[in-house]
Amino acid sequence: MKPEISKLGHFGLVSTDLVKSLWFFKEVIGLEETEVVNGVHYLRAWGDFEHHTLSIRAGEESCLDHIAWRTKRKEDVDAFAESLKANGTEIEWVEPGTEAGQGKAFRFKTPSQHTFEIYFEMEKTLASAETRSVLKNQTHRSWNRGVSPRRIDHVNLLSSLPTKEFADFLQEQMGFNLREYIEAPDGSYLGAWMSVTPLVHDIAVSFDPNAPSTHEVHHIAYWLDNAQDLLRAADILKENGIYFKGPGKHGISQAMYIYAIDPGSGVRLEIFTNGYLIFEPDWEPIRWTLDEMDIGFTYWGDQMDSKTENNPTIKA
Amino acid sequence: MKPEISKLGHFGLVSTDLVKSLWFFKEVIGLEETEVVNGVHYLRAWGDFEHHTLSIRAGEESCLDHIAWRTKRKEDVDAFAESLKANGTEIEWVEPGTEAGQGKAFRFKTPSQHTFEIYFEMEKTLASAETRSVLKNQTHRSWNRGVSPRRIDHVNLLSSLPTKEFADFLQEQMGFNLREYIEAPDGSYLGAWMSVTPLVHDIAVSFDPNAPSTHEVHHIAYWLDNAQDLLRAADILKENGIYFKGPGKHGISQAMYIYAIDPGSGVRLEIFTNGYLIFEPDWEPIRWTLDEMDIGFTYWGDQMDSKTENNPTIKA
Amino acid sequence: MKPEISKLGHFGLVSTDLVKSLWFFKEVIGLEETEVVNGVHYLRAWGDFEHHTLSIRAGEESCLDHIAWRTKRKEDVDAFAESLKANGTEIEWVEPGTEAGQGKAFRFKTPSQHTFEIYFEMEKTLASAETRSVLKNQTHRSWNRGVSPRRIDHVNLLSSLPTKEFADFLQEQMGFNLREYIEAPDGSYLGAWMSVTPLVHDIAVSFDPNAPSTHEVHHIAYWLDNAQDLLRAADILKENGIYFKGPGKHGISQAMYIYAIDPGSGVRLEIFTNGYLIFEPDWEPIRWTLDEMDIGFTYWGDQMDSKTENNPTIKA
Amino acid sequence: MKPEISKLGHFGLVSTDLVKSLWFFKEVIGLEETEVVNGVHYLRAWGDFEHHTLSIRAGEESCLDHIAWRTKRKEDVDAFAESLKANGTEIEWVEPGTEAGQGKAFRFKTPSQHTFEIYFEMEKTLASAETRSVLKNQTHRSWNRGVSPRRIDHVNLLSSLPTKEFADFLQEQMGFNLREYIEAPDGSYLGAWMSVTPLVHDIAVSFDPNAPSTHEVHHIAYWLDNAQDLLRAADILKENGIYFKGPGKHGISQAMYIYAIDPGSGVRLEIFTNGYLIFEPDWEPIRWTLDEMDIGFTYWGDQMDSKTENNPTIKA
Repeated sequence: MKPEISKLGHFGLVSTDLVKSLWFFKEVIGLEETEVVNGVHYLRAWGDFEHHTLSIRAGEESCLDHIAWRTKRKEDVDAFAESLKANGTEIEWVEPGTEAGQGKAFRFKTPSQHTFEIYFEMEKTLASAETRSVLKNQTHRSWNRGVSPRRIDHVNLLSSLPTKEFADFLQEQMGFNLREYIEAPDGSYLGAWMSVTPLVHDIAVSFDPNAPSTHEVHHIAYWLDNAQDLLRAADILKENGIYFKGPGKHGISQAMYIYAIDPGSGVRLEIFTNGYLIFEPDWEPIRWTLDEMDIGFTYWGDQMDSKTENNPTIKA
Repeated sequence: MKPEISKLGHFGLVSTDLVKSLWFFKEVIGLEETEVVNGVHYLRAWGDFEHHTLSIRAGEESCLDHIAWRTKRKEDVDAFAESLKANGTEIEWVEPGTEAGQGKAFRFKTPSQHTFEIYFEMEKTLASAETRSVLKNQTHRSWNRGVSPRRIDHVNLLSSLPTKEFADFLQEQMGFNLREYIEAPDGSYLGAWMSVTPLVHDIAVSFDPNAPSTHEVHHIAYWLDNAQDLLRAADILKENGIYFKGPGKHGISQAMYIYAIDPGSGVRLEIFTNGYLIFEPDWEPIRWTLDEMDIGFTYWGDQMDSKTENNPTIKA
Repeated sequence: MKPEISKLGHFGLVSTDLVKSLWFFKEVIGLEETEVVNGVHYLRAWGDFEHHTLSIRAGEESCLDHIAWRTKRKEDVDAFAESLKANGTEIEWVEPGTEAGQGKAFRFKTPSQHTFEIYFEMEKTLASAETRSVLKNQTHRSWNRGVSPRRIDHVNLLSSLPTKEFADFLQEQMGFNLREYIEAPDGSYLGAWMSVTPLVHDIAVSFDPNAPSTHEVHHIAYWLDNAQDLLRAADILKENGIYFKGPGKHGISQAMYIYAIDPGSGVRLEIFTNGYLIFEPDWEPIRWTLDEMDIGFTYWGDQMDSKTENNPTIKA
Repeated sequence: MKPEISKLGHFGLVSTDLVKSLWFFKEVIGLEETEVVNGVHYLRAWGDFEHHTLSIRAGEESCLDHIAWRTKRKEDVDAFAESLKANGTEIEWVEPGTEAGQGKAFRFKTPSQHTFEIYFEMEKTLASAETRSVLKNQTHRSWNRGVSPRRIDHVNLLSSLPTKEFADFLQEQMGFNLREYIEAPDGSYLGAWMSVTPLVHDIAVSFDPNAPSTHEVHHIAYWLDNAQDLLRAADILKENGIYFKGPGKHGISQAMYIYAIDPGSGVRLEIFTNGYLIFEPDWEPIRWTLDEMDIGFTYWGDQMDSKTENNPTIKA
């Protein structure tokens, strides 16, 4: 049976200013800290069920040292290892417990040199009595501090390599479905939005010839339930002196956004809400042309600066 | 390969007062009419991609004459027919075109005698120029009239037969996953919420010893993007003289709701928003006890009358 | 020149459980504490400009020991004292500084024996550097903790004395305008909503023959900017184990509400949003009959229990 | 007794493309049409109590031919006429009925040559049975069509004349209170926000040395109850091909906005929500410096183009 990815699992963030990154993600954004082990802070949103969806540790260069994907079955971890090796990809095993709460896992470089991790076993840690929700199906109480998003949502990668090759790898080797894409007149892709879930994207990859490398992170994203919460988030970010763009609405995905920069690591965080779900098994990917690209990125609202030099990224 | 259900497809509503039901669903709720064929009105929400998610025709007794489920693959229709027959279930083929836009399909009675339909082929009809969205990934413009929900969401069935048997059938024969349930001290289920998608439920089934039959419909549901839209919906329903309960928030599913009654057919429509998604492949169903049932149904807000006699249902 | 009231100023709350009341108003509701003087805690919402809009001190019986009204001009304080004395009302002067931040003031009993205070001078205290807003026209940052209402809104009083006499006193002696009222067939009033501002009511008074006294407080109210914030408030209240009714929408005032009980003092707090403003100088009061009273109280949503015995009140 | 203004009454819009302006204001924005008399269309929002708050007629040049202010008392109309004449201002009487629903009124030019109208008598027209609200205190049903704002809010004027003189006239001759202002280093004003109501502004006036004349209209504004409604408005405007800027939040007034252009007349319409109210009788105007001006205009969100040439205005 072909191994399958079930979901985006977590981000391993390295920050040159750990104190500031923890302030940003814990106090301003309002993530909960599960525990701190060996200097690594394990965080999650109030509605995340796994031990963590974001880990942060100090380092000399800010980056995502891995982007982790959970498989559908325990045996899929080995099966993915086999199929990737068969495809010529080198893998590196991560011993159980190397990341707190996590079982057997391995990491590998995508053709673009982004570092991915594959795992299945992860503790579904209960919240502490102090922050636990009264609801049995909810991990922590919501609205404890700051923006208070519900859960991890997606990752958006940038590369100086053509998008199509990356998208093909994600489809062929990892089973992602293409949902929406921007196509240049020469048939190349400028961006591709892909998922294994009904979300329009668990991952997006974009081509930027001026990107500093083949393996950049444009942003990581967490989800809010209501668009109104995004407006509340804007107030909170502004009062805390955080630089952000938005709110606005994407054409692609129909979702609303704010893009805020973590002042510690420089990683861009998208706060994301609304949008549509794809339940159709025979979905025909939505194709956007160059002419339609602007409305695809920004249907309305405050838009990102299109110049690369104003949009620093970090590596993954 | 085992056949699989991809999603809830549509409801076939029969109304003793077609004019009033059409007014309710088209003008007050704001569904769009794809077409009218042989006296059957085919409706969908602005974000539904298929030809219809609700059909309404006149009849002598109001009921859902079928609840339709779309398969993952075309060949799953035959495969389901085989597996159900092998299980002793009688099936009845529905010729392509019998329902506008739909290909080969069949209907069968669940053990509770609810009528289900299985299909794969359905036209993904474009909206007319007048109501088409400027967005390529959206069918109709939103907010044309009334409440304006985005899409079909789920169905909630009621039966005088024990829930567990019904739930077992849905799990074993149709591949649904149990997400949350209410368990009586004797181990029987009073309600079960199940899905094939990451929604907490595509279908819920409840046990009521006083239900008029084994095959009742508690409600059908459509989805709104934002909780604020639910408050706007309350204003619209009230101005139109529609009876409803809510707004409120469920503990089970964490979703917000209004329950409105179609004055034509008497079917209860849940307008539904927020809540959580289940991406974990190893989800452990949430068990609610009798003591916790009240908070499970109504976490806060205006609640449904618990007496069966105040809660008329229609058959399916 | 006739003295005039400009606005509702503040509430002087006495609580039999000061610790619990402070937890409720500071942590759950999210009011800011300006200072604590002589055991009195002075609180306000983030958008309140005056030194305090609520003071809380410990006492043997929970009550509002005064409801304070600010005059339009400094000299109106003396003028009100004169006109009330001329009308046979006894007044009691409150020395400047008796209440922190406040200048010359006096208290008196309304004909219903509710204790009112009249003042003009009050310090417009800046927020501390830690909680100050970056906006020059806003006192504290919003969303620091809990529900986080913007400002004080109104007070609702209950009496076993007829409403009309109370309403007449408020109109004739204090200059309130009648905005909406409920009239019994015999011409008596069951409730009256009155204001000196364009708010539909700064004060409401209701008649209940079963009220424990002539001078009860039904609720005090704080304002939220958005209805969505009310739904967020419901989640916060529920997670903190606070008893509340709502959310719902009043017909009278068109505003949305939650009624929560302070577990310390037992005072009912209305969290209030939306509704209309009255700018017309020739407003004709809206008259509601007994038949219309239900929709006047609850247009839709979760309603208050109508039985007095389930609705404990505190005295003022 | 000094005459007083109670509120902003209505706008008299002249459009070079009446059909398009009516489509914009009636279908897209969703104003209700009270009646059409002599080619003039009289409109209002669902929560406006007066006969109209906007009239639209065809003309060769788009402009506001008057901005009307309601007095507090009937006799204030004559009193204003006297005081303005005494101040050297020419007035022109408008016979009762010249504008449908309106009694005795007069028009005059402000020192900036903007045309103002003063009136007291205006019919408070009931809504027709078809669109009437079930609520006694609400004129029309809300949410009948389009954006569906509740009521008229304010007007924003632009002039090539210094702001301070205009602001002084409004304060001294008409009784407006200065609420917020932008001051240049030389003590001149670049903008002033003023009101007779607790709204932060019923009128704002700005100085632009490059304005095409001394008597321009920057925008007229209508009010929405909730910020979420503004996001819904953005979707509606976009689907209808209307050019707009926003959503965003002002620092000055703390209100959220969208600025949309009527494709018929070119007038800019601000859709406006949230913000604060001023109940303090001794309000100290908030002073913004040039350095703070940007945050004053746009606290966050999509901002207006600051160049005059991209911001066409119409005359008043």
